[in-house]
Amino acid sequence: IAPAMEQSSHTDKWVPRTELNAACTTIQPSRAGNRSVNNVAVAPGRISIAITRIAPTDSKAATTVAAPAIAQGMPTVKWRLTSSFPKSLDTLYGGSEVFAKAINEMSDGKFEVKAFAAGEIVPGLQVADAVQNGTVEAGQTAAYYYFGKHPNFVFETGLPFSMNQREYYAWLYFGGGHELINEFYKEYNFRSFVFGGTGCQMGGWFRKEIKSMDDMKGLKFRVGGFAGLILQRLGVVPQQIAGGDIYPALEKGTIDAAEWVGPYDDEKLGFYKIAPHYYYPGWWEACSMYGLYVNIKEWEKLPKEYQAALEAACYEANLDMMAEYDFKNPQALQRLVKNGVRLHAYSTDIMRAAHKAAFELYEEEAAKNPAWKKIYESWKKFREDEILWHRVAERSLSEFLNSNPGGAPGK
Amino acid sequence: IAPAMEQSSHTDKWVPRTELNAACTTIQPSRAGNRSVNNVAVAPGRISIAITRIAPTDSKAATTVAAPAIAQGMPTVKWRLTSSFPKSLDTLYGGSEVFAKAINEMSDGKFEVKAFAAGEIVPGLQVADAVQNGTVEAGQTAAYYYFGKHPNFVFETGLPFSMNQREYYAWLYFGGGHELINEFYKEYNFRSFVFGGTGCQMGGWFRKEIKSMDDMKGLKFRVGGFAGLILQRLGVVPQQIAGGDIYPALEKGTIDAAEWVGPYDDEKLGFYKIAPHYYYPGWWEACSMYGLYVNIKEWEKLPKEYQAALEAACYEANLDMMAEYDFKNPQALQRLVKNGVRLHAYSTDIMRAAHKAAFELYEEEAAKNPAWKKIYESWKKFREDEILWHRVAERSLSEFLNSNPGGAPGK
Repeated sequence: IAPAMEQSSHTDKWVPRTELNAACTTIQPSRAGNRSVNNVAVAPGRISIAITRIAPTDSKAATTVAAPAIAQGMPTVKWRLTSSFPKSLDTLYGGSEVFAKAINEMSDGKFEVKAFAAGEIVPGLQVADAVQNGTVEAGQTAAYYYFGKHPNFVFETGLPFSMNQREYYAWLYFGGGHELINEFYKEYNFRSFVFGGTGCQMGGWFRKEIKSMDDMKGLKFRVGGFAGLILQRLGVVPQQIAGGDIYPALEKGTIDAAEWVGPYDDEKLGFYKIAPHYYYPGWWEACSMYGLYVNIKEWEKLPKEYQAALEAACYEANLDMMAEYDFKNPQALQRLVKNGVRLHAYSTDIMRAAHKAAFELYEEEAAKNPAWKKIYESWKKFREDEILWHRVAERSLSEFLNSNPGGAPGK
Repeated sequence: IAPAMEQSSHTDKWVPRTELNAACTTIQPSRAGNRSVNNVAVAPGRISIAITRIAPTDSKAATTVAAPAIAQGMPTVKWRLTSSFPKSLDTLYGGSEVFAKAINEMSDGKFEVKAFAAGEIVPGLQVADAVQNGTVEAGQTAAYYYFGKHPNFVFETGLPFSMNQREYYAWLYFGGGHELINEFYKEYNFRSFVFGGTGCQMGGWFRKEIKSMDDMKGLKFRVGGFAGLILQRLGVVPQQIAGGDIYPALEKGTIDAAEWVGPYDDEKLGFYKIAPHYYYPGWWEACSMYGLYVNIKEWEKLPKEYQAALEAACYEANLDMMAEYDFKNPQALQRLVKNGVRLHAYSTDIMRAAHKAAFELYEEEAAKNPAWKKIYESWKKFREDEILWHRVAERSLSEFLNSNPGGAPGK
């Protein structure tokens, strides 16, 4: 962090320069602000640096096998998958459709998974209950919706100031994260499979500019559940409002600010028309990972072929969702900026205060709740190691590219 | 980038502080160095902010079906998959094993894929030929090995100063990248599926410290193919040496430096004992993506169920490889640092010179090679949009976490 914060490097072709320059602000940390917080030394500036069927060779099947009967040996299984998300969140809900399509294709429709949007079978926030009770075989959801049942539900989705999506995959798949989480889920009669994510979300839409912590105090802010506990500690008044009710509340001034997802999803709700100050990063969702909850008895009934197909289809839904968001968000952000949106980074004092409040909350919970502590300790250690590694190669190159996003000579 | 480059923020618990502090240096750009290069404004400091089988309900199969016969309707297909990688690159070669296991499980062994390491069927660099000629049905490889056949082979793996792995997935899957690449591959009788990656690699092992561009001139540097074209423009003498021959060449001083992959893979070759200066980032492999090459005729012969299984298994291999590297690399880097490795960032003048040389090469090729230009233009535009979007939420939070990797109060 340098003392002289000049115009950020958002000065390249992408959207008309003047528009983006006008829309972008960067944080303005004081020099003193570069150090502080918990005596962690801060580097003041690192490198910004057709399908033709083959003749079956199996002797039992050597008589001509009609195409639709090719999977005839496999049992028919029908599953309903209920999602926490509406179809309007097409990329997020789309994960369920990608998954269902892959399973259906792999099994020639013998393992038939049908996806239902929020409200078609049960409301969006009752997915965990529906899978637990066997109302449905499977559900797509964000675990942190259920942190009221038990705080451990936040871990699968990701905590504020957590890891980025790639780092989180490493913890979940190889760092023991998902094993611990699924052990915890046993008492709810379901297990989960990692099921995509949005990446780091945006920090919300504000009617007025927020320059420092003082501007956060008393602010009525529509924000997802768990983050609200941290924002409360900062003097913010968190509000729980369903997606469709946010716009009128923001328009009337009943609330001062609202966060949703990222540019692509946010654009559709039109917040930019009434709250043009768009903040980043969404530090409470460094990544936001979804889960496919599967009723354990239903899982155990599946032939091992279908279990393997289900697992592979989850990987497909994962990577597809991540890539689709990364494809759609840049375009949406460009449109938003052209529509007058003002992009702002949260000020360093807000970031630091929120970071401190978040870890105070985590440590307090760890001191009184052994079940939380068990997963938290794994998460915490993995996170620190991961951040330290990633800032070596990955982030040093990212920072260089941030500062040098073009590259053609003469540009 | 700030004028006063102080000790980097690698000062947290992870490895003993003194060891890591001793090992880490950060780049020391001059203030003047902050601007320059092509008049692209540089932000001097952004925010551092059991399988119980269910009774088949299909009437044809309603008589008791023995477990192994459950997939009896499906044809038997046997494929050989030859890899460019030796088994010693266990995570990279491991992608082929993860893929083969998933396919075999999904089909109860009816679609049997057997993976072979480099040299078992054909040498590592003949995978493309072997798939093209139908010697094998499929192969795992890094496309850029074949840039001598045609420069377009670099695109699937990734170009120097390209995008990070997540951004590259977005281009390949949704930005039209892989469609263009597979169109180009048609003349080679194969198509490719994205098949994992290492993330941003490290920048190599040097016998002596490299402080600026002057120290790069005349340097004999073992480095993978395409990057050598760029390094030549910087006065470096690129060397092509197989993995097992690098250590003795480096020990004798026949070469001055060598790059391989990242901490986990590099550690096994022991370079740290003889060339302790370990540089980052590996700007020539911002990401390094692998492909599963599949002979088009063999692909078209597959029943659609097996095609869908193959695609889903590729997603599994992708995400699994990325997460496994992210799990193993932090631990390996800690061990390396404890063994006396000195971590250095490439100096800004080297990064900028290399960046400029890279894009000059790309533009020169675009001016004379329409086939290259077709894919390059897609890559280039997508890259710029992606970098601009990702530095908003994703990278601003990353940079904050880089500077504040801990988080427990009082730390």
